[in-house]
Amino acid sequence: MMAFDLTLRTALERAAKLFPHKEIISRDYSGTFRYTYADFYQRTQKLANVLQNFGIQKGERVATLAWNHHRHLELYFAIPCSGAVLHTLNLRLAPEQLVYIINHAEDQAIFVDKDLVPLLEVIKERIPTVKHIVVMSDTLDIPGTSLANPLSYEVLLAKAKETFSFPDLSEWDSAAMCYTTATTGDPKGVVYTHRGLMLHSYAAVLPDAINIGETDRVMPFVPMFHANAWGLPFACTWLGATQIFPGERPQAEDICRLIQEHKVTLAAGVPTIWMATYPLWENGKYDPSSLREIVSGGSAAPKSLLKNYMEKLGVSILHAYGMTETTPVVLVSRLKSTMKDWTDEEKYSVAAKQGLLVPGLEMKIVVEDGKEVPWDGKTMGELLLRGPWIAKEYYKEPVRSTAAFADGWLHTGDIVTVDAEGYVSIADRSKDLIKSGGEWISSIDLENTIMSHPAVAEAAVIAMYHPKWIERPLACVVLKKEYVGKVGTGDILDYLTGKVPKLWLPDRVEFLDVLPKTSVGKFYKQALRKQFAGLMVANSEGSGA
Amino acid sequence: MMAFDLTLRTALERAAKLFPHKEIISRDYSGTFRYTYADFYQRTQKLANVLQNFGIQKGERVATLAWNHHRHLELYFAIPCSGAVLHTLNLRLAPEQLVYIINHAEDQAIFVDKDLVPLLEVIKERIPTVKHIVVMSDTLDIPGTSLANPLSYEVLLAKAKETFSFPDLSEWDSAAMCYTTATTGDPKGVVYTHRGLMLHSYAAVLPDAINIGETDRVMPFVPMFHANAWGLPFACTWLGATQIFPGERPQAEDICRLIQEHKVTLAAGVPTIWMATYPLWENGKYDPSSLREIVSGGSAAPKSLLKNYMEKLGVSILHAYGMTETTPVVLVSRLKSTMKDWTDEEKYSVAAKQGLLVPGLEMKIVVEDGKEVPWDGKTMGELLLRGPWIAKEYYKEPVRSTAAFADGWLHTGDIVTVDAEGYVSIADRSKDLIKSGGEWISSIDLENTIMSHPAVAEAAVIAMYHPKWIERPLACVVLKKEYVGKVGTGDILDYLTGKVPKLWLPDRVEFLDVLPKTSVGKFYKQALRKQFAGLMVANSEGSGA
Repeated sequence: MMAFDLTLRTALERAAKLFPHKEIISRDYSGTFRYTYADFYQRTQKLANVLQNFGIQKGERVATLAWNHHRHLELYFAIPCSGAVLHTLNLRLAPEQLVYIINHAEDQAIFVDKDLVPLLEVIKERIPTVKHIVVMSDTLDIPGTSLANPLSYEVLLAKAKETFSFPDLSEWDSAAMCYTTATTGDPKGVVYTHRGLMLHSYAAVLPDAINIGETDRVMPFVPMFHANAWGLPFACTWLGATQIFPGERPQAEDICRLIQEHKVTLAAGVPTIWMATYPLWENGKYDPSSLREIVSGGSAAPKSLLKNYMEKLGVSILHAYGMTETTPVVLVSRLKSTMKDWTDEEKYSVAAKQGLLVPGLEMKIVVEDGKEVPWDGKTMGELLLRGPWIAKEYYKEPVRSTAAFADGWLHTGDIVTVDAEGYVSIADRSKDLIKSGGEWISSIDLENTIMSHPAVAEAAVIAMYHPKWIERPLACVVLKKEYVGKVGTGDILDYLTGKVPKLWLPDRVEFLDVLPKTSVGKFYKQALRKQFAGLMVANSEGSGA
Repeated sequence: MMAFDLTLRTALERAAKLFPHKEIISRDYSGTFRYTYADFYQRTQKLANVLQNFGIQKGERVATLAWNHHRHLELYFAIPCSGAVLHTLNLRLAPEQLVYIINHAEDQAIFVDKDLVPLLEVIKERIPTVKHIVVMSDTLDIPGTSLANPLSYEVLLAKAKETFSFPDLSEWDSAAMCYTTATTGDPKGVVYTHRGLMLHSYAAVLPDAINIGETDRVMPFVPMFHANAWGLPFACTWLGATQIFPGERPQAEDICRLIQEHKVTLAAGVPTIWMATYPLWENGKYDPSSLREIVSGGSAAPKSLLKNYMEKLGVSILHAYGMTETTPVVLVSRLKSTMKDWTDEEKYSVAAKQGLLVPGLEMKIVVEDGKEVPWDGKTMGELLLRGPWIAKEYYKEPVRSTAAFADGWLHTGDIVTVDAEGYVSIADRSKDLIKSGGEWISSIDLENTIMSHPAVAEAAVIAMYHPKWIERPLACVVLKKEYVGKVGTGDILDYLTGKVPKLWLPDRVEFLDVLPKTSVGKFYKQALRKQFAGLMVANSEGSGA
C-alpha cells in the first residue's frame, strides 16, 4: 500500500472539490453570515498566504482566542495545512493562565475576536513571543485598542494572494494543540498530530459513534477552544456537512433559535447547555424537531435529562466521553441491537453511561496494583487508554508526563465501572471520589440521583471531613425557582433513601442559589471546596447530618 | 499522539470483548451453522496455534481456497493477526493460473474446502512450497483424496491449544494478498498492509460510504477470494455486526432464501447476482423486505436495474466501485443532500454512476498528456488514484509495476468521466474502449442502454474492425426467454436511436444464448473477442450494418 500521509489537507481539499456549493453559516456580529465551501477554501488559501507573509515557520504555534464561527474554521485549516500548529486559547482562562500558556507554547501570532481584545490588552506586555495580533470582525475596521499594532483580519484577507499551494506534510507533524487546566500546577499542553486528527475524524463520525454524514446540519456549541470542539469542525468539513456556528456568547435563547432557524440535525455541547435549553423547548417557545440527535459530553448528563428529552421533546441525547488528552472522542453510548427489547428504563440506564469504546482504541480499567477489574458494572477502577488519537505526553513536561503516560497507556484519572456489555460509566474523577472508610462513593452517581428529584435544578457533591470515616458526602443543591423554600434537607434524604446505598446518604445538604462552573461549563468543585473550606479540614466541627 | 499501530488485532479483540454474544452464521455443508463472536475468537486463537505449530514465519503466505463461510473468516483473522499473510486463491482460476500464483506467492500452506480438493489434486505435484494442506469440512472426517498428507481443519482445531497471544505488529506489515488476472501475461499480486485494511475499514463503513453499524446483518455474496470480499469481513467483525455467509456455490434461490431467513439488512455482490435474483423477488416467491440496501460493484449495474429494484421491490441498490489494487472501495454513489428535490430520473442517473470518492483518497482524471479533464460529465480520461489503501506496486513485478504506478498514482486503466458534482462514471476499461475514428465510444454506456430495452436480459459490446473507422461497436445480446425470436437487430437499433450518439449505433448485433463471464461474474469480453475473432482482424469481411 502507498505510504500516503493522513493530513488535514485531504479533508480541506475534499470539501472544496466535492462540496463547493454546500454552506457554512455563522451567527456573526451583524447578523447571519453564510458562504459556501468554495468561498471558505478561497479564504483559507488567502489566510495561509497571510501566515506565510508573517514568516510563520513549520511547527510554530499560532493562537486563536475566539468564539465558534467561520473565521475560526478558516484558522482551523489554514494554520495546520500550511504546516504551523493551531493553538486554541480558552477565552475563559484567568489572565495569569493565558500568559502562562501563550509563553509556554511560544505563540508567534494571535487571532482574536474583536470583543475579546480586552483580554489581550491586560496581558500585552507579558507575551513577548507574539509578533502579530490580528483582530477578527465582520468589517474591515477594528475597534480602538491599546494594543501596539493591531491588524484587521478582513483587511489582511482582502489584500492577500488568492491561491496557496498547501505543502505535503508528514502525518506525524503537529497540527494543533490545546491546554487543559490541572488540579494543581500550571495548565498542561496536548499536541495533536495530523494523523491523530484524521483518524479521530474517521472514528467519531462512524454510524456506531456520533454518526455524521454529508446530509447533516451540524452545530457545535462546545467551544472551538475546547478539545477541537470535539473534532467536529475537522470531520464535518471533510464530509461536506453543513456547519452552523453560534458566534459570540450564545445564550439558551440563541441556541434554541439557531437550531430552529437553521434546521440543525445534530447539536453538540455540555449537559449544562441542555439543562438550560430544556425549559424553552418544553414550554413550546422553540421547536427542536429538526434535531436528529444531541451529543452531550464534557461531563455526565443525568438519566433524568435523557429521559425528559426523549419523552417530552422526542429528541435523543447521545452520551459521549472524552478529554483534551484524547482528541477527544473515546466512548459513545449507543445501544446495541441486542438491547432493542429491553424496557425503556433499562435503555435509559445504558444511555446514561458514558458508553462503548469507539473503534480504534484500547482500554483497561485497573485498580491500584494494575490488576484489571471485573466487567460487573460495580467494581471501580481507573480508566487507562491507548490508541492513535491518545496523547503520548504533555508538551514540554517530561516530569508531569511520567505518571500520566506510564507503560504506554494514558492514565485518565477517571474512576469508572464497566458492565458485562462493555459500557463504561464514570463514577468520578479520582480527585472527586469520596473515600468513606474503606468504601468509595461516586460523587457523580450521587449528584445524578439528587438531580432526578423533580425540585432540583443542579447538584454537586463534594467530600467533607469526618473524624471516623475520614470523608463523607456534602451535597450542594440548587432548587428550581418554584421550589425554593419548599424543599429541605429531609426531603432530599428521604428521596435518596432506597435509591443509593445507605452509606452514600449525604451527611449534609447545602442549598445554594447557583453552582460555580468551570470555563467549559462543568461544575467547579474546587470553588465549592473553597466555599466550604471549614468543613474540609480535620479540625472542622461539621460531621453528622 | 501515541505511535499506535493500526492492525487487525484491534478489530479482532474489539469484537471478542464488546460483542461476545453477537452471531456469525454460515450456510454449511450440513445446514445452518451459528456461533458467537466469543466462539469465533476462541477458534481463531486455536487456529493461530495451528499455524504456529506448522512453523509459519512472520510474513510468509498462507493460502485459502474456499467459499464464504465462518471458517474462512477465522482464517481472515488468524493468519494476519499471527503475523503471516492471508493469500486468498480464486477458485475459478484455471489450474495453470493457480499453479502460477501459488508458486509466485510461495504459499506455505493451503486451507481448502472439501468440495474444492479436486482443484488441488490436479496441481499437487507442481506446488513445491506448500508443506501443509488442510481440508475444511463441518465434520472431523474429510473425504478421500489423492493428496499426499491431507489434514482435517476440525481435527487440528480440536487438538489445538486454546489461547494465543497475538503479537504486536507494525501497521506496515503485510496482512493479506490477492492476485488479479491481467489482460496479458500472468496474474499480478497485490499485497495489503494492516494499515491499509484498517483505514479501508474506517472509510468503507462511513455513513457517506457503505454505511454499516453494529445493528446491521451483513451478507457478502462477493467472494472472500475477491478483493477481501470488499473488506466487509474485516470491517463487520470490527463493528460486531451480525455476519451471514452463503457457503458453497450459492445460486439465486439460495441467495433469496438466505436473505429472507436471516433478515439480512445489507447484501453485497456483483450486478449479475442482482439480475439473477430479481425475478424471484418480483414474482413474490421470496421477501426482500429486510434489506436496507444492496451494495453492487465489480462492474456497472444498469440504471434500469437500480430503478426496478427501487420501484418494484422497494430496495435501494448502492453502486460502488473499486478494484483489487484498491482494497477495494474507492467510489460510492450516494446522493448528496442538495439533490433531494431532483426528479426520480435525475436521481437514478446519479445512482447509476460509480459515485463520489470516499473520504481519504485522492483522484485525478487525465488524458494522455497527463492533463486533467474538465468536470463536465462528458470528457473521458483515465482515472488515477492515490491514498492509504491503494497499492504501490505489483508483488515482485518491478517491470510491470512501473507504468501502472507511475508518479505515485495508480493508473487504473479505467476510462471515466466526472460530472460537475464530482460523480465519476466508468465509460470503459481502457482496453474495452471503442476508438472509432477520432471519437471514443464507451462500451459500458452502450451496454447499459441496450440492457434498458425491456426484451434484453444481458448485453456486452466489443470492438470490431472497420477499414475506415478502425473500430466499430459489435453488440452481443441475450434476450429474455419470452422475447427470443421476436426481437431483432432493427428493434435494438431503433431503440438506441436518439438515446445514444448516432456514431455509437452498433454496426452489428449478435443474439446469443448466454454471455461468457469471468471468475468474478463480470462479462468476459476476451471470450467474445475470441468467438468473433473473424470480425476483429483487419482483413475481415464484416463491416456495415
